[in-house]
Amino acid sequence: MNIAAAGDGVRMTLDELRELARKKLRAVGLSTDHADAVAETMVAGERDGCTSHGIYRLLVAASSISRGVVVPDAVPVASEPAKGVVRVDGGGGFAQLAFERGLPLLVQKARDQGIAALALNHVVHFAALWPEVERLADHGLVALAFTPSHAWVAPAGGAKPVFGTNPIAFGWPRPGREAFVFDFATSAAARGEIELRRRAGEPVPGDWGVDSEGRPTTDAAAVLDGAMRTFGGHKGSALAAMVELLAGPLIGDLTSAESIALDGGRGGSPMGGELILAIDPAAFLGAALSDHMARAEAMFAAIEAQGARLPSSRRYAARRESLANGVTIPARLYDDIMRIGE
Amino acid sequence: MNIAAAGDGVRMTLDELRELARKKLRAVGLSTDHADAVAETMVAGERDGCTSHGIYRLLVAASSISRGVVVPDAVPVASEPAKGVVRVDGGGGFAQLAFERGLPLLVQKARDQGIAALALNHVVHFAALWPEVERLADHGLVALAFTPSHAWVAPAGGAKPVFGTNPIAFGWPRPGREAFVFDFATSAAARGEIELRRRAGEPVPGDWGVDSEGRPTTDAAAVLDGAMRTFGGHKGSALAAMVELLAGPLIGDLTSAESIALDGGRGGSPMGGELILAIDPAAFLGAALSDHMARAEAMFAAIEAQGARLPSSRRYAARRESLANGVTIPARLYDDIMRIGE
Repeated sequence: MNIAAAGDGVRMTLDELRELARKKLRAVGLSTDHADAVAETMVAGERDGCTSHGIYRLLVAASSISRGVVVPDAVPVASEPAKGVVRVDGGGGFAQLAFERGLPLLVQKARDQGIAALALNHVVHFAALWPEVERLADHGLVALAFTPSHAWVAPAGGAKPVFGTNPIAFGWPRPGREAFVFDFATSAAARGEIELRRRAGEPVPGDWGVDSEGRPTTDAAAVLDGAMRTFGGHKGSALAAMVELLAGPLIGDLTSAESIALDGGRGGSPMGGELILAIDPAAFLGAALSDHMARAEAMFAAIEAQGARLPSSRRYAARRESLANGVTIPARLYDDIMRIGE
Repeated sequence: MNIAAAGDGVRMTLDELRELARKKLRAVGLSTDHADAVAETMVAGERDGCTSHGIYRLLVAASSISRGVVVPDAVPVASEPAKGVVRVDGGGGFAQLAFERGLPLLVQKARDQGIAALALNHVVHFAALWPEVERLADHGLVALAFTPSHAWVAPAGGAKPVFGTNPIAFGWPRPGREAFVFDFATSAAARGEIELRRRAGEPVPGDWGVDSEGRPTTDAAAVLDGAMRTFGGHKGSALAAMVELLAGPLIGDLTSAESIALDGGRGGSPMGGELILAIDPAAFLGAALSDHMARAEAMFAAIEAQGARLPSSRRYAARRESLANGVTIPARLYDDIMRIGE
């Protein structure tokens, strides 16, 4: 999604954008800690050209707060139920602050044990997962992250929603370079993309979903009322189930079906948990660390040498541009944002 | 792949099959420990109706041994480089015995820390990954497994082989029932399936691969000479890269490109490493374990209630049949097996 209108917007530095986001999030009732953590995620999205996860999300967050879906002043509480496990109870607040509270403990445990897990519980999600795995890669750690969402997606062979869009993210540290990071939904398309097609009156590809009777359809509204499909057939469906299990029952938190039931039609962001795994390559490689990390670079070079892009390469290009020149917020979005909290 | 010819075969109990496999593996030079561990995997494949990973693999293993690709009497050596990490150096032998040596340590560490990793290094692979994750699920643990293979698969956006067929397996314990298990290649199809089409003179679907010039093709032989594609476009390609990194450089072992280079045209099975992660749900859930495992069962029920199958359900049905009535080895395969080591 790119909601930017050409030549018609407000140019801002990232610092200005961060300040605006913090101010507006405080204005709708978020505590300062939450406002700072949430603003950081939105600025990162806007900076990297992921406008659907950028500053536009101020409107989504404000809506979630006004509908009572999120606890605006929740205080995350960290615990250590096992030597390799950190749990942060987010108290119904946005996930970002819970992650910030858990991150130092996760990093410490991964370095101590070689591998560790962070469970975020009882949090509200609206963001991508790449910021989390990238933060861990910045600490030299390999990372995986999983979260369910709302039940919108049918299993392969079925036609009724069971899974969420259930993203999987992975991060790999590249010394001196931006991390190798991917983050994708296990659904065939993002729900926001189908919503955009609906608004534009455009059809969707035939493998994106089915209508409420389980029939194939290219009608975006019918898919939104029916069920989305996973990417990659039964393989994507298996991965979607894995995400439900790992970031749902395994950590004692909601499945996508439970999240949407709890939402009760309010249209709020998904509630539940997130699981993040962190692995320290130094625990496996010791003194040979840099030799083996160089072998990973040889694989990346073999991919790029044939003209294929690494995941996140467009995002990193957008980042370099934004860091140098700031970002442009579309005029209409800017106006909508300025009205938040007034 | 199902190489069984109807009504023309040798019926055996699983015990008889196991004894035959052990005898033949010893006859081609495998040490008793290796022969027992490898036979178990082949019997499990045959039992579960996975004939391409079943007793047919005796021919493949015998070939790998005769070509000098595998060390037939390697003694796996386990070490514990970190509190959450087990490493087993397989010494160039088949992976099965290395896994057996590492399994008890992995289970212990997962229970002690909540999460642990097992790296198998310097092993030869010819089997599926589901036996490993199922074994861990039998211990009540959630498991993930990854291994590269030989570089046969192009990254999305490219046309030259970089990745192996790079499977991902996942296991989830279901108390009193067969585990929820999946195990799939991140390539669009199994290499053996393309080989079968080539032998039969049949075309392959257009999204399975490209020829050696990078052009789309439905010619099976051209795909085998060119490059296979990943499943699910750029998402499958990202997962294939993750498998390379996790079970290659992270654990100090070969990438698929390095494995095929080392093979040097001998046509042996892939060499390198395997990474297995084990997570103890009890570490996250404590006394609430059974409540939350029951919530996973509710999700499985929601999938099956709409007529969709869980992964491995056909395999488990075949298993029940084989345990009750034994298996039938096709006559020609049986003859080929009887000639091994003579």
